[in-house]
Order: sequence, then structure tokens, then C-alpha cells
Amino acid sequence: MEERTEISTLGEFGLIERLTVNNETRQASTVVSVGDDAAVIDLFGRQTVVSTDMLIEGIHFDLTYTPLKHLGYKSVVVNLSDIYAMNATPTQILINIGFSNRFSVEALEEFYEGVYAACEKYQVDLVGGDTSSSNKGFIISVTAIGEVAPDNFVKRSGARVNDLICVSGELGGAFLGLTLLEREKRIFTETGAQPDLENQSYIVGRLLKPEARKDIIEFFETAGLKPSSMMDISDGLSSDLLHICKQSQVGCVLYEEKFPFNEEAREFAYKLKLDPTACALSGGEDYELLFTLGQDDYEKVKNSPDISIIGYVTGQEEGSHLITRGGNRHPLTAQGWNHHKK
Amino acid sequence: MEERTEISTLGEFGLIERLTVNNETRQASTVVSVGDDAAVIDLFGRQTVVSTDMLIEGIHFDLTYTPLKHLGYKSVVVNLSDIYAMNATPTQILINIGFSNRFSVEALEEFYEGVYAACEKYQVDLVGGDTSSSNKGFIISVTAIGEVAPDNFVKRSGARVNDLICVSGELGGAFLGLTLLEREKRIFTETGAQPDLENQSYIVGRLLKPEARKDIIEFFETAGLKPSSMMDISDGLSSDLLHICKQSQVGCVLYEEKFPFNEEAREFAYKLKLDPTACALSGGEDYELLFTLGQDDYEKVKNSPDISIIGYVTGQEEGSHLITRGGNRHPLTAQGWNHHKK
Repeated sequence: MEERTEISTLGEFGLIERLTVNNETRQASTVVSVGDDAAVIDLFGRQTVVSTDMLIEGIHFDLTYTPLKHLGYKSVVVNLSDIYAMNATPTQILINIGFSNRFSVEALEEFYEGVYAACEKYQVDLVGGDTSSSNKGFIISVTAIGEVAPDNFVKRSGARVNDLICVSGELGGAFLGLTLLEREKRIFTETGAQPDLENQSYIVGRLLKPEARKDIIEFFETAGLKPSSMMDISDGLSSDLLHICKQSQVGCVLYEEKFPFNEEAREFAYKLKLDPTACALSGGEDYELLFTLGQDDYEKVKNSPDISIIGYVTGQEEGSHLITRGGNRHPLTAQGWNHHKK
Repeated sequence: MEERTEISTLGEFGLIERLTVNNETRQASTVVSVGDDAAVIDLFGRQTVVSTDMLIEGIHFDLTYTPLKHLGYKSVVVNLSDIYAMNATPTQILINIGFSNRFSVEALEEFYEGVYAACEKYQVDLVGGDTSSSNKGFIISVTAIGEVAPDNFVKRSGARVNDLICVSGELGGAFLGLTLLEREKRIFTETGAQPDLENQSYIVGRLLKPEARKDIIEFFETAGLKPSSMMDISDGLSSDLLHICKQSQVGCVLYEEKFPFNEEAREFAYKLKLDPTACALSGGEDYELLFTLGQDDYEKVKNSPDISIIGYVTGQEEGSHLITRGGNRHPLTAQGWNHHKK
């Protein structure tokens, strides 16, 4: 039988001790870590970058098909992704969790295993946070801190007319993974049939265990590149690119034929009668980097297998458009994952 | 009729825009604020201090008697209190909120009014955060960032034998405020009788609108004082002092007769047949500063009306004790507000 330790047997401080007993310090800038009122970070001569996000059970994740370890990993990664999206390097994180008495100490330890795995992979320190009861469900709030050489950060507002629009990796996979898992959950609920994931480990992995594009930021540094604007794709390419356009006061043209797809994912989309392009534009949660580069930088990225040039920046008055494979021109609309709209 | 705008009419980004339209930047170190993947902070030559906390409806606050504006104010203040407790100065905050569709845009604006009032009072910048749906209730997660001159921070672990144990302000008021409000809520629920707060604005204010002790940190600087250890009192004097003792590997003696009480609060405690000393030891949420000072610093604090010397530090082997007014010696136990125990 699996062990189940009630959280009440440890109390809050006992629980924090148990969850942080193996916490390691990797960053020289971490002066004071978990266990005091606040952490202390020493970043002489660098700029600090900080971002925070909340994940709520039933809204952002479904524990019927999300292993807690993956959830811990993903909670960290989606916040690190925001730091990379500033062209910065994450260094520390803080995590608050709230949970009902449905969760055991072992369940929280599993969650933290994922947190620590992400800390290890991305070389960041967990330096603070807080645990709390909730009346219902699991609530996670992560704050990520990073550093960047003075004024080397990249905002959303710097895109200029004629810049290339680029994206890392492949698009739409996480949304397809979600669609598959939701379908199997529905079938299981209605018929009791065991989930059939059809060997779709790629798309399921894209949803449950995304990675942040550390490698792309490192490539920028090596190649001497600095994007004019950048953000990570969490709500879907369309919604996120429209943010860049709005904040940069520019328009854009995207080419459907240039969109990067994973072959398996594309096949699976067709099987579900979904348009891969729609998945890429509106799906969200891919955590790829969307950025703009000056035309002069074309030579530096044209051969990168991890970067696709998918369009270019226009004047604001020209609006934002997608050119389809058939040559048709459609206005882009924000249809990202908007939690407040149904 | 009061205006009620459904959040769905604005969408997430419209909502964030509306809530942050009057957001001001006060700190020179704030380079990039709300509206990008992350904020950028420039703290050359200072150390960064960072802390985070989560507040959940039904666990940490009760909206039947907590005005949303006060809640916004308090959410910020309790986090700033952690920064002051490191002997640091808060400079920026980030806020995540999650809320069910029971909340209107106006309700969230009221919450943010309190947030901005605290930002104004404590001269900090709101630089980021995220809004999200929740299935149930209101969830708040605040991260506070501060700065401190290199190695001038104060940890919990620095108390030394013979140090003076000091506390700012008055103790037990917030707990009495909570007791009163909970009593009136119960009476209202059972009988429909309107709340009678008996002109107890002091204790109600201590609970609903606490302040962080910025003035004490400023006094330390002016007086050339640096505590050997410090934390803020959120769980109750007893529980929090035992943290300092544990982390400093020391014991302590407290004198009941030295505890600072507000006269009205003390009278009200007697009226409720509560022991003011128990309220101070176990009540929590006073957000006063608890700190230790070397004996040499006695002259500098003995005349401060805002600082009480309530005991001294002993060797760890002597344990932790309270000497009552009658001269009896009781071991101190942690009976703070432990959300995980009932």
C-alpha cells in the first residue's frame, strides 16, 4: 500500500522542512535562501528580471491526467520561460502552494520532486515560498528571478517595420496533447474505457512536460544576436504576436507555409479533423519563443534548425494578417486561451 | 444601483489594463514594469531581498467582514513586513490574483485601490503579476522585492546569548479584532442582529489594516543599530520567537510584565474573558518586528516609545521560558496560527 502521511501530523513548519530538506544552492548570487522572512540575492552589476504566475487546479491543470511531478516541473518551467523571454537567465525561484486536505505529504513531495528536477535542469535555486491550506484544490504561485547584462533585456515593444518574425521549435503540440487527454478523460468518464494515448507521447509530453528555451537564449549570445522584441508563446501564436504588435505599434504578415510543425502532431491533427494551423495560432502552452530580428540578422538564423522565420513586421496601418498556403489573406485575431472568456 | 461590470466583458488583458492604468513608477531601480514577460530591476551595488506569500479566501481572510480595499492593502503590507524583517527596504511588488465569477470588475478595482494605497504609502512599485479565474473564492499571491546595503541584512539565526529580546508596537490586537469580528459574524448568522463593534476601532484596525514597521527600520539606520536577529510577528510572539531560538540555537526568557499592550485592547480582552498575555503569545497577525540586540545597544533603545525590551537570550540548554507577573516560570510552546492543524 502506498504511504500516506497526513499533513496535519507535520504542521506547516515541519512540512516546509520536509519539502526543502534536499534543496541545493547552485547560484553564487544566492546569499540567503529558504528559511527566513525573505531571500537575499546579490547581483552586483547585473539587472534583475522578475516574473510571477499562478496555476489553479481545474483552471490551468487537471490532476486526473497530470502527474504531480510533471506539474511541479511545469510550474517552474513556465515561469523560467518568461525570464528567457526577456533575454535573461533565470537564477532563483520562489513557490507558494495551497492545497486541501485531499493531498498527503507524499503527494506534495512528488510535486516538489518535479520542482527540484526543473531547478537542477535549469540551474536555478529555490529560495523561498510558503505553504498554506486551501478549501478546495491545488493552487501554485511561482515567482522567477533572473539576471541580464545591463540593458541587454528584450521587451515586447521593440519590433520595427521590416523585422523578421521568428519562432523557436514547433507549434500546436501542447494543444493537441490537451485535446487528446480531454477526449480520453471524457471517454473514461462515460464508458470506463482505459485511455488510449495512441503512442502520442510527443504531443502529450508537449502539454505535460514543456521545456523553456534556454538553448535559444544561449544561441543568441553565442551568435551575437539581440532580438528587437520577444515573448514566450503561452496563449497561442496569434494572441501573443498581437501583443508584440500592439506594444510595438506595428502590424505583421505571417505565412502559413512557414509554420513549424512536428510531423506526428500534424498527422494527429488531421486524424482529429483539426487544422494544424489553427492549433498553432490559437492553441497556446507551447512555451516557444516568439521574437523579431532585423533583416541584417537573416544570415545568422537562416540555417538554425530550431528557429523558423514565419513572417515580417509591417506598419501598424497595414494591420496583422496571415497568408494561407492557398495565397489568401486573413486578418489575425486573438483567440488565445483566455481564462476569463468562455 | 452599484455598477457591476462582468469580467468576461473585458477579457484577461483588458482587465489587467484596467487594473493597472493608474500604476505609477516611484523607484529609480524599476526599469521595466507591468506589461511584459517580466519586470526588470536595476540594483547595482545593493543586495536584493525577495519574499512571497499566498492569501486564500476562507483560510486567511473572510470577505463577510473584510472590505476588498483593506484586503488589497493588507496583502501588500504583510509582504513588505517580511522585507523590513530582513532590515531591508522594499522597492517593488508583484501580485497574482485568482477569482471566481462572483467578483465584478468593480470589486477587483476596489482590491487594487488598496494595493495602490499601500504602494503609495510605502513607496514601492507594482511591477508585475497575473490575473486568473478560480473555481471558488479569491486567491492572492504577492511577491515583494527589496534592497539592502551589502551584508546589512538581518537573519533569524544571529541571536547570541545575553542579547536583549525586543518587540515593536503592541501585541495581541489583531487577534482580539478577529475574535470580535468572528463573534459578530456568528451572531449575525444566527439572529440577523447587526454587528456591534463596540467602538473597538483599534483592534478591528489592527486586523483589517495592519501597517509594516518601516519606521523601526529607519530608526535602526538613524541610530546606527543592527539587530543580531529579526523576524516579523505573523504567527504569534511565541511561535515566532521559537523560530529565532531554533535557528540561532539559543534559548530565551520572556517577562510577561514587559509585554506591550494597548489599553483599550487589554480592557476588551478582559471583557471577553481572554488573557491578554495569551493573545500576545499566540494571537498572530500583529506584523510587529521581533528582534534581538546586543546589551551594548541598551542605551539606544531604552527610551524608544515604539520598542519594548521583553526578555533576553539564554543558552539553548536552558530552553525557552515565560516568567509570569506572579513570578512563575512556564515553558514557551508554539501555538501560532497553524493553518494545517485544527
